Amino acid sequence: MTPPTNTCCRLAARPEGMPTPDTWDFTEHDVPEPGDGEVLVKLSHISLDPAMRGWIREGHSYIPPVQVGEVMRAIAAGEVVASNAEHIAVGDHVSGMLGVQQFAVANGHAVQKIDPSVAPIPTWLGALGMPGMTAYFGLLDIGDPKEGETVVVSGAAGAVGSIVGQIAKLKGCRVVGIAGGPEKARYVVEELGFDAAIDYKNDDVAAGLREHCPDGIDVYFDNVGGEILDAALAALGRHARVVICGAISQYNDSTFYGPKNYMALLVQHATMTGFVVSDYGARIAEGAREMGAWVAEGKIKTREDVVEGIEAFPETLNKLFTGENQGKLVLHVG
Amino acid sequence: MTPPTNTCCRLAARPEGMPTPDTWDFTEHDVPEPGDGEVLVKLSHISLDPAMRGWIREGHSYIPPVQVGEVMRAIAAGEVVASNAEHIAVGDHVSGMLGVQQFAVANGHAVQKIDPSVAPIPTWLGALGMPGMTAYFGLLDIGDPKEGETVVVSGAAGAVGSIVGQIAKLKGCRVVGIAGGPEKARYVVEELGFDAAIDYKNDDVAAGLREHCPDGIDVYFDNVGGEILDAALAALGRHARVVICGAISQYNDSTFYGPKNYMALLVQHATMTGFVVSDYGARIAEGAREMGAWVAEGKIKTREDVVEGIEAFPETLNKLFTGENQGKLVLHVG
Repeated sequence: MTPPTNTCCRLAARPEGMPTPDTWDFTEHDVPEPGDGEVLVKLSHISLDPAMRGWIREGHSYIPPVQVGEVMRAIAAGEVVASNAEHIAVGDHVSGMLGVQQFAVANGHAVQKIDPSVAPIPTWLGALGMPGMTAYFGLLDIGDPKEGETVVVSGAAGAVGSIVGQIAKLKGCRVVGIAGGPEKARYVVEELGFDAAIDYKNDDVAAGLREHCPDGIDVYFDNVGGEILDAALAALGRHARVVICGAISQYNDSTFYGPKNYMALLVQHATMTGFVVSDYGARIAEGAREMGAWVAEGKIKTREDVVEGIEAFPETLNKLFTGENQGKLVLHVG
Repeated sequence: MTPPTNTCCRLAARPEGMPTPDTWDFTEHDVPEPGDGEVLVKLSHISLDPAMRGWIREGHSYIPPVQVGEVMRAIAAGEVVASNAEHIAVGDHVSGMLGVQQFAVANGHAVQKIDPSVAPIPTWLGALGMPGMTAYFGLLDIGDPKEGETVVVSGAAGAVGSIVGQIAKLKGCRVVGIAGGPEKARYVVEELGFDAAIDYKNDDVAAGLREHCPDGIDVYFDNVGGEILDAALAALGRHARVVICGAISQYNDSTFYGPKNYMALLVQHATMTGFVVSDYGARIAEGAREMGAWVAEGKIKTREDVVEGIEAFPETLNKLFTGENQGKLVLHVG
């Protein structure tokens, strides 16, 4: 019997614009051995996130970039197959920054146990994972929506936006989603319960916001940046809160689009605040508990788009930027 | 003896870009009579403010635009020469939205009494007026600087910026000013006590911010917008507060420059908030009291640039946008 090998996806070259096949390199290795306090995880699912485009960009951000030659950084989940960590047993399921590979060694304190009997593993990478916590803290802590207020979210059918809108509905807000294409617009209204949706690929976003937010936007949760952010700024209401979560429309552009309408902040005495979910490390348990209850009770619906095989990573990642995914995008590792 | 006439400066045409002589029209009228509850003010000083460029722009802002043909809106001060308002006597000095003219009729409740024995009238239009209140509330309420923090202000030698920096020094902050030209840079450091200054006309602003703010900016108070705002965003520290007060570099441009580095808000968990001083109407007495004490005690220095004659309004206003003024720009009405 041949011993198993570990297929890894490495950053081969920093892309200009959209990543291409040349951006990535697949290599084969022996399965590594865990050291003291470490665990060996056999990955079952890898999370594909817009932040990945930032991680392969040269230069300083909230975490150091992935270096050329390194295994691509990714949040992933799987089963522990060897453990030198006291609190983790073989057979446990864990998630963490495990990378785009089949097997990963990690410090036992750098992974979190997850329970596949509570929710399927892809959900642990979505609503109960980083995207869900991003939605939870970004909306509730920064957006601070009050009952009856109007909340607008871009990327509304995506992993973060779909949760943002549903939490806002649970808090008694009127919710308007901005999404690409009629199917996503239908989905957020008919399946997720948003009050309205604007299809930015076919509708005039500014006109849609005027129609659906006649008293102005109270909370705008931005995942996309670009001209959609500008349209939202122009539609802000008094004391609006703009939550800057991402700018996926800009991640592959060499020049970032700056929001020309930012002086709306002055006219409306409004605030624009950015964050990354790791800022909330100390409060993750709080978010996980509440989100877990909402998902378990069916108050928050989740949807994952699971693609087969680690080799599909390069083209699957790009689906995020073209908006082809339907819900949280996850690779299933064969 | 000829009865006095009232010279008024009216908006003749909305300018594209920088106002020109054709933007304005001077007309002569009889001096108006105050009605019930009104006062007649003989103006002595007219305040020239960057906001004026916004007031003559078509379209919705925080107040309606001045219409073509109307007397140009301006904050001004003068002596009451006739009064039908119970609480205001002939001989009182008042300030208010009195316009670019020699005589103004105003509702007695729309003007504030000022005391020329406490401070010269130009100071009542500067440090003790709208610019001073803008600095006070924008810095203290929105910027919320803590002792030992680094505060950066653009337009540092101007009517607002010079006060912002001095208040920040009173609060125990390290203060870096951005100003145009070596004389303004010298002024804010040597005369106003700022810790450092960056001359944006001759220095590299980004490099200057790296040098003078090695731990990042805690509060950035922006009066100018454009590339200077972008340089400041790139130099923000953790949990920085960006106060959007103005964008004078952009007011004459047909396309507004959007800050390309706004995603620094995300990386630094930082906030960008806008305001106009009228948002603080209910708290003006608080600001006026504290600013008045600081000015009286010499803790805050004021400087006014007084230009002679209402006819000088057109070319004097443009000095604001070319940065030729030295301190608060005021017209003396002959």
